[in-house]
Amino acid sequence: MENNTVSTPAIIITPEEMLQHWQGHRGLTRKVIEAFPEDQLFTFSIGGMRTFSAMVHELVDIAAGGVRGIATGEWKTLMHGEEDAFPKDKAGVLKLWDQVTEIIEEYWPQIKPGRFHEVDKAFGQYENTVYASLLYFIDNEIHHRGEGYVYLRALGIQPPFFWER
Amino acid sequence: MENNTVSTPAIIITPEEMLQHWQGHRGLTRKVIEAFPEDQLFTFSIGGMRTFSAMVHELVDIAAGGVRGIATGEWKTLMHGEEDAFPKDKAGVLKLWDQVTEIIEEYWPQIKPGRFHEVDKAFGQYENTVYASLLYFIDNEIHHRGEGYVYLRALGIQPPFFWER
Repeated sequence: MENNTVSTPAIIITPEEMLQHWQGHRGLTRKVIEAFPEDQLFTFSIGGMRTFSAMVHELVDIAAGGVRGIATGEWKTLMHGEEDAFPKDKAGVLKLWDQVTEIIEEYWPQIKPGRFHEVDKAFGQYENTVYASLLYFIDNEIHHRGEGYVYLRALGIQPPFFWER
Repeated sequence: MENNTVSTPAIIITPEEMLQHWQGHRGLTRKVIEAFPEDQLFTFSIGGMRTFSAMVHELVDIAAGGVRGIATGEWKTLMHGEEDAFPKDKAGVLKLWDQVTEIIEEYWPQIKPGRFHEVDKAFGQYENTVYASLLYFIDNEIHHRGEGYVYLRALGIQPPFFWER
């Protein structure tokens, strides 16, 4: 008799948990945007780096375009080149942030099992397994938000606690 | 007749891939440590924040103590209170970093399937599912490394590319 026992794969994180993890991080980044004074969000920088609003522009593009690309295989950034469309005030940035939250909630359930281990060219450029691209999107946000923490500290502002999701 | 079909769970990332992901991030952090001038690693700070070496001390403690805690259920930081044991020069920090790399390689294969969804008190204090604690350890490193990037930029030094793992 054949042994048909399939060993249980070690599930590190389920799709539902990963969605929660991602949105939790995005909730923290939202608090960091809120913590910036209106003007400094668009002007403050250290050592020739981008402003935090420019980083947020990138994060919004990647998150919205990323979840859509993962779910559908069609890759384009949220703004796809219409740079002028990015909001010019904090309220607008926060509103856009919340729209992306909804886009993620909309597309995430459409991701098919097995998709995470397919190889795809994210945004038509970055060939990788889908799970690695997804982690890159999230890690990239954590990275830039960490940079935003230093901006806030340099401005004398206490950032939100890192574990507050 | 009963339908015994078990739907394939969507594997986002396998343990082997997660190990590679973690060590890839640690490789990048190692490059950031290397990029600091010897003295500034232990002295430079912005806005009253910790030096990058103090952050690295935390990362080393969490990574080594974290993987051991996940694998064995015994939680203690690498230095467990012996603060004086942390190296005072860059070569020593890098050597310690590499020792932690080996500790992770040693303990990771001992993690039992199913462990990632157990609830445990990380370091006797932070009650969470094990996968959430693991992600916290990695995310915390990305976060502080992002802060280190701003330190380097403020010092006029180009940090390594974020995608260089």
